[in-house]
Amino acid sequence: MKKIDLNCDLGESFGAWKMGCDEDVIPLITSANIACGFHAGDPVVMAKTVKLAADARIGLGAHPGFPDLQGFGRRDMKVTPAEAKAYVQYQTGALAAFASEYGLKLQHVKAHGNLYNMAGRDHDLAVAICRAIKAVSPDLIILALAGSEMISAAEEVGIRAASEVFADRAYEENGALVARSKPGSMITDEDEAAARVLRMVQEGKVTAITGKDIPIRADSVCVHGDNPKAVAFVQKLRTMLTEGGCELAPLSAFIV
Amino acid sequence: MKKIDLNCDLGESFGAWKMGCDEDVIPLITSANIACGFHAGDPVVMAKTVKLAADARIGLGAHPGFPDLQGFGRRDMKVTPAEAKAYVQYQTGALAAFASEYGLKLQHVKAHGNLYNMAGRDHDLAVAICRAIKAVSPDLIILALAGSEMISAAEEVGIRAASEVFADRAYEENGALVARSKPGSMITDEDEAAARVLRMVQEGKVTAITGKDIPIRADSVCVHGDNPKAVAFVQKLRTMLTEGGCELAPLSAFIV
Amino acid sequence: MKKIDLNCDLGESFGAWKMGCDEDVIPLITSANIACGFHAGDPVVMAKTVKLAADARIGLGAHPGFPDLQGFGRRDMKVTPAEAKAYVQYQTGALAAFASEYGLKLQHVKAHGNLYNMAGRDHDLAVAICRAIKAVSPDLIILALAGSEMISAAEEVGIRAASEVFADRAYEENGALVARSKPGSMITDEDEAAARVLRMVQEGKVTAITGKDIPIRADSVCVHGDNPKAVAFVQKLRTMLTEGGCELAPLSAFIV
Amino acid sequence: MKKIDLNCDLGESFGAWKMGCDEDVIPLITSANIACGFHAGDPVVMAKTVKLAADARIGLGAHPGFPDLQGFGRRDMKVTPAEAKAYVQYQTGALAAFASEYGLKLQHVKAHGNLYNMAGRDHDLAVAICRAIKAVSPDLIILALAGSEMISAAEEVGIRAASEVFADRAYEENGALVARSKPGSMITDEDEAAARVLRMVQEGKVTAITGKDIPIRADSVCVHGDNPKAVAFVQKLRTMLTEGGCELAPLSAFIV
Repeated sequence: MKKIDLNCDLGESFGAWKMGCDEDVIPLITSANIACGFHAGDPVVMAKTVKLAADARIGLGAHPGFPDLQGFGRRDMKVTPAEAKAYVQYQTGALAAFASEYGLKLQHVKAHGNLYNMAGRDHDLAVAICRAIKAVSPDLIILALAGSEMISAAEEVGIRAASEVFADRAYEENGALVARSKPGSMITDEDEAAARVLRMVQEGKVTAITGKDIPIRADSVCVHGDNPKAVAFVQKLRTMLTEGGCELAPLSAFIV
Repeated sequence: MKKIDLNCDLGESFGAWKMGCDEDVIPLITSANIACGFHAGDPVVMAKTVKLAADARIGLGAHPGFPDLQGFGRRDMKVTPAEAKAYVQYQTGALAAFASEYGLKLQHVKAHGNLYNMAGRDHDLAVAICRAIKAVSPDLIILALAGSEMISAAEEVGIRAASEVFADRAYEENGALVARSKPGSMITDEDEAAARVLRMVQEGKVTAITGKDIPIRADSVCVHGDNPKAVAFVQKLRTMLTEGGCELAPLSAFIV
Repeated sequence: MKKIDLNCDLGESFGAWKMGCDEDVIPLITSANIACGFHAGDPVVMAKTVKLAADARIGLGAHPGFPDLQGFGRRDMKVTPAEAKAYVQYQTGALAAFASEYGLKLQHVKAHGNLYNMAGRDHDLAVAICRAIKAVSPDLIILALAGSEMISAAEEVGIRAASEVFADRAYEENGALVARSKPGSMITDEDEAAARVLRMVQEGKVTAITGKDIPIRADSVCVHGDNPKAVAFVQKLRTMLTEGGCELAPLSAFIV
Repeated sequence: MKKIDLNCDLGESFGAWKMGCDEDVIPLITSANIACGFHAGDPVVMAKTVKLAADARIGLGAHPGFPDLQGFGRRDMKVTPAEAKAYVQYQTGALAAFASEYGLKLQHVKAHGNLYNMAGRDHDLAVAICRAIKAVSPDLIILALAGSEMISAAEEVGIRAASEVFADRAYEENGALVARSKPGSMITDEDEAAARVLRMVQEGKVTAITGKDIPIRADSVCVHGDNPKAVAFVQKLRTMLTEGGCELAPLSAFIV
């Protein structure tokens, strides 16, 4: 049976500000990307989120971002590879300290926002991030965009990589995500979105925006827990995936 | 032979701002308290500082402080024990991630500035900090003011504690440091300062500001690397301690 | 006709995080305390909030707080008077720059959270804050707890002061707010809360928690716009005040 | 007599970290660009720096930067024009509040680091910054790279602009600065640097890196006060300029 992971960004509250429906989405997912204080999250939020995720026995992941709280890590910042390495190392270590309270180790690291985007296209940045992850622990898995520079950098550096796919995004023929600014970039029909994911998992294929089928590797699907509607879609996706013959499992269960 | 550790705050630069003569003082000390980004230090500085300290084979310690960069962690902040616990856990984990790059583990944690001061007097805060340290690793040693609440909290929580003494500070009869605002609070004569330390180590005694001898436990002496004069004093102290029959050693070599 | 101001904290969103029902409460109030980026708010939020308040022609006020985003300015920080002065000056000037875009000047300054609380009891801190306000503009009004050190400091420094009262809080016989940790500190019945405010405005009296009537000056009532229920109470309070013969007006209309 | 301004970045200390020889360079310059807390400076440093500059009767300018303390504002950040506008407005207003304490108004605004560089090339960003400046006060002068988008944006928006030249940098034929990464980008000979400036001021010409003379407008020369050597060069430049028949004067004395 084909295994697939569902990952979701969690712990994005900060201080007095609440964000996301973490309690609602946790029972539906298999891996958590937990914000580490640079773009979102703070130590108190991290402590609480790690406890929730640990209790639910889902895979714990660090979600390091740019040091840009006001911009939620969603603005390009031209950091050097050495800076990116230090930022990822710092944030991953910080999160690991909360997991160790429960005798747990982190399963994976997924870069956040524009650090994810920039490193997906920039080989030096991608290598720096993979080195940071390996420095914290060579057992960690990097979760990154299928077909991106991050996936090849992981191989180069010698850590395991998991390929992430998106239910609600269109793909270019080269496997890149269609930019949000372009028409047709978002898959808005939920049934179509779920069906596309099922095909990516089962057949390793997706229809690009040009109409051509392209190969794609799907180890994990990125889902959202921002609001009740997003949570409802995760439930639907779970159902379609399991009825379609997939087994939901955290990355650590099958990434080698 | 009586063993004694010399500890110094390191890695207090931040971004473009340089602070401290780290390279000069590292060869003279046995343990480093490395700033973790809340009151000083940043990920790039931490990476560099850990490398320097690791190369010198001195004990690596986290130096967590209040989230108060503008105040350098030297202002009282009324945080809850839960907040203090999360802050110490976060910062200690972040620093540990840089040590692991060299296959090293942290030796100790020393709270910084007013977090150190407040927790030395506040039992709940002290317990919270010790719990944070234990959560990261039960092998970590807490380095704290001799006779303070932090030392008893460590016993209560079940982690090892090392007692810190100060060469340049006068003591009250109850073992507390004389407040800096009081006359006579500072020991300005370097020979007297060094002689007092030697006696604390060898005899376990110090003369309080009242003139009365009091018992004191000295596992580690706090030294400074802020400027060339401070570094010169560390050299003098080393000489007096070794000539006085003490062996300089990091905490991990003798704290049980 | 007795004039009374209704003031509310606005602009407490930050980056991607939304807080408060600003659009809903603005039509009901006469003065706005706008967060200035230290405990909440950011430049983009401030720009938007000033525009909303300027369009509604309500009094514009700065709401400076401690530099403590994680703690929302609600933790005691032992800053020096010089630091407090600089913080208030900085934040007030920053907000004024958004008002000047519409040819407007700020009406008032109200310290936020624990800066408000600490300065209400600490004469030196209160004087420092009043000096900061005067430095920005001698025309600014300070809005502060009725009977507090801030009110007397304003007189000492030579700026106008407006006395603030609370609908939902019990008072000690000396005019201080009953600490939230004590039983009976909150007035939970909305009709009672509104009736108390009306009496404070009309008679200059309130019944302290001991049962004794005490004198109190009420220039402005602190209301909340955090949630729909709070907004509904503001509507009720407006109705009771106007039906009770008061005229709602911003501070600039009547504070001399 | 041709008037020329000498401007220098000041107030770049932060919290416990000191940077720059402000006291030494202030007597030698005519305009100050004072950091506003985003890339350097903090409210206490700003208060002190404005006092120093006000006492010396030099032109007071805001030096707003990206919200990137760790990177000192020297990393590209892809902010929107609306964000840039709000950041400049906020920081300029904050600094103005310290000037008003002495009955003074700000003379100019100069964007810092990579905000200066990016806006020099990006029309929308340049217009946003000029609008921010005009919103704070239409009397403010923008100080920006000669021939850059900022200069033309100022005309478009309707504020005064002053053209800045660099003593130690080579120019491309199109008037842009030669990138620091290219050979020959820096003018390291001090006499040559000073002579180039004198010619820019007196003749409105400079020899580009290609050997060709190009026209350039010089209202202000950027000088540095980082270290004693830099300060000594400012002294030399002053002497050469005055002996060469120029009058040193702040921007407000001659920019129309």
